[in-house]
Amino acid sequence: MKLSIERAALLKAVAQAQSVVERRNTIPILANVLIEAEGNEVQFRATDLDIEVVDKAPAMVERAGATTVSAVTLHEIVRKLPDGAMVTLSEDSAAGRLTVAAGRSNFNLATLPKEDFPVMASSEYQSNFSAPAPVLRRLFDKSKFAISTEETRYYLNGVYMHIAESEDGRVLRCVATDGHRLARIDAELPEGAADMPGVIVPRKTVGELRKLLDDDEMKIAVSVSETKVRFATPAITLTSKVIDGTFPDYTRVIPQGNTRKMEVDAADFAKAVDRVATVSSERSRAVKLALDEDRLILSVNAPDSGAAEEELAVAYGDERLEIGFNAKYLLEIASQVDRENAVFLFNSAGDPTLMREGGDTSAVYVVMPMRV
Amino acid sequence: MKLSIERAALLKAVAQAQSVVERRNTIPILANVLIEAEGNEVQFRATDLDIEVVDKAPAMVERAGATTVSAVTLHEIVRKLPDGAMVTLSEDSAAGRLTVAAGRSNFNLATLPKEDFPVMASSEYQSNFSAPAPVLRRLFDKSKFAISTEETRYYLNGVYMHIAESEDGRVLRCVATDGHRLARIDAELPEGAADMPGVIVPRKTVGELRKLLDDDEMKIAVSVSETKVRFATPAITLTSKVIDGTFPDYTRVIPQGNTRKMEVDAADFAKAVDRVATVSSERSRAVKLALDEDRLILSVNAPDSGAAEEELAVAYGDERLEIGFNAKYLLEIASQVDRENAVFLFNSAGDPTLMREGGDTSAVYVVMPMRV
Repeated sequence: MKLSIERAALLKAVAQAQSVVERRNTIPILANVLIEAEGNEVQFRATDLDIEVVDKAPAMVERAGATTVSAVTLHEIVRKLPDGAMVTLSEDSAAGRLTVAAGRSNFNLATLPKEDFPVMASSEYQSNFSAPAPVLRRLFDKSKFAISTEETRYYLNGVYMHIAESEDGRVLRCVATDGHRLARIDAELPEGAADMPGVIVPRKTVGELRKLLDDDEMKIAVSVSETKVRFATPAITLTSKVIDGTFPDYTRVIPQGNTRKMEVDAADFAKAVDRVATVSSERSRAVKLALDEDRLILSVNAPDSGAAEEELAVAYGDERLEIGFNAKYLLEIASQVDRENAVFLFNSAGDPTLMREGGDTSAVYVVMPMRV
Repeated sequence: MKLSIERAALLKAVAQAQSVVERRNTIPILANVLIEAEGNEVQFRATDLDIEVVDKAPAMVERAGATTVSAVTLHEIVRKLPDGAMVTLSEDSAAGRLTVAAGRSNFNLATLPKEDFPVMASSEYQSNFSAPAPVLRRLFDKSKFAISTEETRYYLNGVYMHIAESEDGRVLRCVATDGHRLARIDAELPEGAADMPGVIVPRKTVGELRKLLDDDEMKIAVSVSETKVRFATPAITLTSKVIDGTFPDYTRVIPQGNTRKMEVDAADFAKAVDRVATVSSERSRAVKLALDEDRLILSVNAPDSGAAEEELAVAYGDERLEIGFNAKYLLEIASQVDRENAVFLFNSAGDPTLMREGGDTSAVYVVMPMRV
């Protein structure tokens, strides 16, 4: 194998590949990236056995071939090469080495045989559709904060992407929850997605996917089977196993009968929560919300260190209510609101509370109260 | 005690105080800041028993007095208050509480008696002089990287500030070394400093001092005794114990007879070192420098992972030389060069190497070679 490639194109391709590679590997080949050159193209493939990413880049291929080298070392080298450099990769298969050359720099990297690289088996996908990058970005960005980190509840360690029936008809929906809070985000049903099986997309995959979604103009090709999900742009294909488990029936958690409505500026609310929580050094900082006619008093009482109280003007017309929440959870859902006011719908101090952005029902958050 | 103060002034004063406070304290009062209000001024005092910082800020004092509260909590609260807010601090000494109020926010913090706060004993200073902030900044910024982190060699855990005899007469000099590399930085002798005893300024003090030195126009009042050093601006006074030990005779370490001179662009050199070091994953990455007529070849050989080589154009007219260094040390001294070329003076592969910036002898660096 021998090829030349522009440093910027190489860096982009290798950066995505190396981020999939696990830093601590007991299997040496998993630390490597598989480089395959053919025609006018070079492919960089990396995997952690659950996720596989393939990056394509245009290159001048002088001699087709394939080999594997350390993804992290290759990335570090390319990152440190001067911008605009032309990089030559050439394999000496007899010596088991790959030479990376640019200007007066010469690197000689140990390789492992390409045959040992575990390429993910190809699959039949039941559903293939395409969705604009901003749509997928919204679905995952607004739900991922609620993903559970408890490994014993592995079926909550991802975002449940599925087709659902909403008030406005069938939608593409993402749901995540850890039992304390829940996010449910809807998007218009993409053409061809109607038969998609529901899948739980793992947390790491959600993180890797995010890097494909920055370009507002990009259309993402999505393929889904019972066991795998694939997201692809013309240059990058991200394939991931989905979590083998059943996502719980979240619909029962979303309160329907909450009638006590409070409307508040989301940014002001978040800042006030953040401030009053300062006096408590505990990990689960309980904030008390005391509601009265158009008035909200937030307070925290930490007997050892102190107390804090802050008043906010809100729109509220129902009877007096006192309810407590984990400050972190309140902050997280308030920071999801990007346009309108935050609308909270309460029932009682012991019942889950619902939040949405203004009148928009396509993004709904639920948070469990805590005793204060 | 009761006073009002502008949020920005309060934040600045409390920020400096809380950074001196150690995060893990077994003595509760050391986590607190002592607030003393009198006249038109409030003082914030914090200490870790080795360093004491006192910040003064103008305030409207309604009732003079003093108390102590958690430095970190107070700082967090003030940081989160809206810019431009007027903050009122009022003590309820009967309840043992300090109220912090701004707008509709109200905080109530636990206090500890001001009598328990360990105020550093005042001292007689043998030497008092003043130095421009940029002069002290250069002295400490260019030497601190060489401070040793080995606790057993406690007398190397700081910067040795003293008066020395240089080629150009008496100078104010800072020296730091960890036995592998050394930095020796000179500045013009400030008026009144001639009798200053040499002191070892501890690493943490050097870090705290740095925050006083950002303003190019500022004059810093420096006071030195055998046991303490004090740096002061009109608003901030930083007092620190010095390290109780003898700094070794560093002059013997600085080679005098190194004649083989290499001149190189410092930035190009640093980048090349950084690149070739990439292939080695060991902590002490050895870089080999091979010098020939106006040509430097940098190389690293890591049998397991690979090899790297890079050529640089340099000015060198002496005989061939091969010498190895720790890549990190080379990078650190090369990044001290801010104006001219880096000038290296070698002797043999086994002898310490000297580096300076162009012809400037007021900043000199020594680095020990390693076998490659």
